[in-house]
Amino acid sequence: MRISELGEFGLIERFKRQIKLDSSVVEGTGDDCAVIKFSQDKYLLFTCDMIIEGVDFLKREDPYLIGRKSVAVSISDIAACAGLPYYCLAALALPKDVTLKFVDALFKGMRDMAKRFKINLVGGDLSRSKQVTIDVSMLGLVEKASLVLRSGAEKGDIIFVTGALGGTLAGKHLRFDPRVKEARFLAKNFKPSAMIDISDGLSKDLGHILAQSSKGAVIYEELIPVSSKAASLHDAICGGEDFELLFTLSRNKAKRLLRNNPMHFKPIGEITDKIYGLRLIDKRGRQHKITPKGFRHF
Amino acid sequence: MRISELGEFGLIERFKRQIKLDSSVVEGTGDDCAVIKFSQDKYLLFTCDMIIEGVDFLKREDPYLIGRKSVAVSISDIAACAGLPYYCLAALALPKDVTLKFVDALFKGMRDMAKRFKINLVGGDLSRSKQVTIDVSMLGLVEKASLVLRSGAEKGDIIFVTGALGGTLAGKHLRFDPRVKEARFLAKNFKPSAMIDISDGLSKDLGHILAQSSKGAVIYEELIPVSSKAASLHDAICGGEDFELLFTLSRNKAKRLLRNNPMHFKPIGEITDKIYGLRLIDKRGRQHKITPKGFRHF
Repeated sequence: MRISELGEFGLIERFKRQIKLDSSVVEGTGDDCAVIKFSQDKYLLFTCDMIIEGVDFLKREDPYLIGRKSVAVSISDIAACAGLPYYCLAALALPKDVTLKFVDALFKGMRDMAKRFKINLVGGDLSRSKQVTIDVSMLGLVEKASLVLRSGAEKGDIIFVTGALGGTLAGKHLRFDPRVKEARFLAKNFKPSAMIDISDGLSKDLGHILAQSSKGAVIYEELIPVSSKAASLHDAICGGEDFELLFTLSRNKAKRLLRNNPMHFKPIGEITDKIYGLRLIDKRGRQHKITPKGFRHF
Repeated sequence: MRISELGEFGLIERFKRQIKLDSSVVEGTGDDCAVIKFSQDKYLLFTCDMIIEGVDFLKREDPYLIGRKSVAVSISDIAACAGLPYYCLAALALPKDVTLKFVDALFKGMRDMAKRFKINLVGGDLSRSKQVTIDVSMLGLVEKASLVLRSGAEKGDIIFVTGALGGTLAGKHLRFDPRVKEARFLAKNFKPSAMIDISDGLSKDLGHILAQSSKGAVIYEELIPVSSKAASLHDAICGGEDFELLFTLSRNKAKRLLRNNPMHFKPIGEITDKIYGLRLIDKRGRQHKITPKGFRHF
């Protein structure tokens, strides 16, 4: 049996089932970051993301933006748990014939992204490969009271996104800004009940929140903020690599947020009982059942 | 200009020069692990190692041993700083046509190695690639008083290794045991002045200690413990991937260790002034200048 028959998420589930963790691990393999006990009032967040030529970027794309993305994807994971990023390592594998110019630009992109968020790039590993491959692992911290997981969504909660979706193939996937400031603003003022960053696509990542929270949801086509660069509504719902945050707030908090809403977060729907699954109401009021679709590696 | 003209270590030096770190980082890119301030009495150790099909292993090799190695190489880095490993993440990239049997065995090797050292495998990332690629990033802790770096070797110190060298191509590189117990024994009883794990080869890794400590060294052919599987003395000196620890002790500590030496560490030479470089005295007493050679990716 080939792994392509089981699929990416089948494979991940297979891994997860076999893992045993001790009590110092608050959250293991079920969220954007691993959450580890650290001090009286803080948790350590630990995450990694690997990006690969031909899958996550093309070799002819701007190496500065590729380097930038390699660090930004892990920052986005830390943001999804409402934490602040502090340290990262970069494991880099390169084909022999890569030019020094390419590597210098790649590395400048990584450094600039790290610098912008005051992250220490404390080391890494360098190896040879057929495809340019970058795995950035990152450490962050979050106050215990601020930690947001995927698993806390409640029936009646309002679902929000931090910005327009879709258009990643038009270049957004290389230029996005990780939503650390937005996550910290939320954690401080409106503590979301659940949060995730949109890397696999709205439908799939909302699906992760629903699965971890044992809930269903209804979202409204007319409320979904579609990027001007999106090819279609389908692109905005299933495209992936938006790296906006998707979060849920109790109705009271949602009302309070919408009274002012300085960061222009968009409400797109509501959490329901699990039995209803994930539904989309289109502009004519018709209801569509959505099966979470998004990017799959296998 | 291609990166192969600059070489692996030229490229690493180029990266290092451009990195700025804040005061929470005790040791950045110059050691086996990054060393980060953590608590009153402990440092956090943070490291990653990427292994790639065709470079670090062959696809026809036992996937259980490949998985085992992917975790063991990072444990070895933690051991080289005299720490204990606690948490790791695994970023895995696989070709589409890999069998489930291969992946299950790979993952069992990772899990078993983690379990043996009571390490929590807290998550990871899964991606598609042409070559099987595994990057394990790991967190460890070390008491401040126990931390050993590459940079502390002093003139007159005795150089030791924890075991026989060479023979990695005969399979040792897939079956080695990370020397955590040995490192902890040393840190507790004989606090080495410098330590490193032998991944690039004795001459190269001793070269790292000498460079970081601004010292020279003399080693004796007749003292070097050569594995029965080593192809030659050259293999033992330049082979790489032994994953034994290489460490230095003051003469007094060395004498005290050799009086009992329950772990059978082998003295192989002595630290000298920098001006003498790295020299090998052969069995006939002839002196050879050694330029650090070992495995290079580019």
